[in-house]
Amino acid sequence: MSGGAADSRSVAEKLFAIADAFVGRESLSLSDIAARARLPLSTAHRLVAEWVAWGGLVRGDDGRYRVGMRLWQLGVRQPTALRLRRIAMPYLEDLLEATGEHVHLAVRDGLGAVYLERLSGPGAVSAISDVGSRLPLHATGVGLVLLAHAPTEVFDEVIAAKPRKYLPNTLVEERELRRRMAEIRSFGISTSVEELTRGAFSIAAAVRDATGEVVAAVSVIAHVERVGEPQFALGVRMAARGISAALGYRPPSD
Amino acid sequence: MSGGAADSRSVAEKLFAIADAFVGRESLSLSDIAARARLPLSTAHRLVAEWVAWGGLVRGDDGRYRVGMRLWQLGVRQPTALRLRRIAMPYLEDLLEATGEHVHLAVRDGLGAVYLERLSGPGAVSAISDVGSRLPLHATGVGLVLLAHAPTEVFDEVIAAKPRKYLPNTLVEERELRRRMAEIRSFGISTSVEELTRGAFSIAAAVRDATGEVVAAVSVIAHVERVGEPQFALGVRMAARGISAALGYRPPSD
Repeated sequence: MSGGAADSRSVAEKLFAIADAFVGRESLSLSDIAARARLPLSTAHRLVAEWVAWGGLVRGDDGRYRVGMRLWQLGVRQPTALRLRRIAMPYLEDLLEATGEHVHLAVRDGLGAVYLERLSGPGAVSAISDVGSRLPLHATGVGLVLLAHAPTEVFDEVIAAKPRKYLPNTLVEERELRRRMAEIRSFGISTSVEELTRGAFSIAAAVRDATGEVVAAVSVIAHVERVGEPQFALGVRMAARGISAALGYRPPSD
Repeated sequence: MSGGAADSRSVAEKLFAIADAFVGRESLSLSDIAARARLPLSTAHRLVAEWVAWGGLVRGDDGRYRVGMRLWQLGVRQPTALRLRRIAMPYLEDLLEATGEHVHLAVRDGLGAVYLERLSGPGAVSAISDVGSRLPLHATGVGLVLLAHAPTEVFDEVIAAKPRKYLPNTLVEERELRRRMAEIRSFGISTSVEELTRGAFSIAAAVRDATGEVVAAVSVIAHVERVGEPQFALGVRMAARGISAALGYRPPSD
């Protein structure tokens, strides 16, 4: 119940805090929502009722709340996600067929890599990424590629936010990260080994649109034992090139 | 600007009216939003700024607003949509391969059929449905199937809402609709010819979950000249049966 009296947030901010409570959660009780949104139970009750009346949240037979079809309908029309996913899908499917592990398509959103799509083979390595996940730029293959091509202010913000060292291999020092960014820009590909998930490696490459800007990244996450197999780097490169071409990108040498 | 002074809507209702303005629109200007949400420009300006601060809307370089990645992230985790889409996808892909037209997966949301997925072949007939679309139950193949298996109150509400006659073949009379519902329940399949879109026919079937409840419908929309080809009904039946089995449904005869 703390924060009720001194809460200077607007009604809109409180409503959005309730929505944010659902990130990474399938269902929440009213008291979970109140705690996560830092609202008194009575306020949470009133504002959750507004979400439910609209259809943005639904209350299940178990009394718990879930994201409703209304939010799905709105979100699914997000133009970037819709267009990129649609254009990329055949290339991602080819990449899945060539590798049999996890295939990702992600875009940068602030200091996070947001996963627009994940396709997975039946024996794929265990990985925390999923459709809709938002993972840190410095610790994921797609994130490092997106960071390497982001404005320099983004890099400065990542450093200022003190990137977390998830595993011994996670790069967190400014100097190391700068070196990796330069490598990615010159090789056109990023290879990460056990930087976020034990037992997994990732190969990622940038997707460009017709203006040449990097708008997304594609990656494969696979069992670390397979790190030397050539089809990963080749497949990721081909997928990134194919999606870029489908978006209208023409390499300078054309 | 009308309605400003006498507007009895809560802040939440006004915020949600702004979100609703984006249904079916890729981008809107501030004055479009104000008009569609029936808000004075100053109120729209202030509330749109709240949406933008949260990331639910973004303002493009062209000054127009679009749904932001934040709403996409929230919506994409909607448990029903996420689970159904994931389980159904391989069956929908097979159905696309067998037919080469539009393949749909839809669920009922109130009096509408909401399209969770649409896959399309290169020469598919022109159709208005798309991922995230919400179309009336009485005028779509998936909608008729969902209506045939919905509680009777839903049917009464559809009739009370005076269903629109989109084309000469659209069923709008209570008696005709009741007869069609009964047919769908006994044949397990719905065939509609030019009931919503000229030049197109649709074949749809119900998807059941482990409890036997109808939770979704699958359909093909194709060029009307192809209405006699047997692979449509066969393919739709097989896809519906496959998805139902994957959801844990066991037919009573097993």
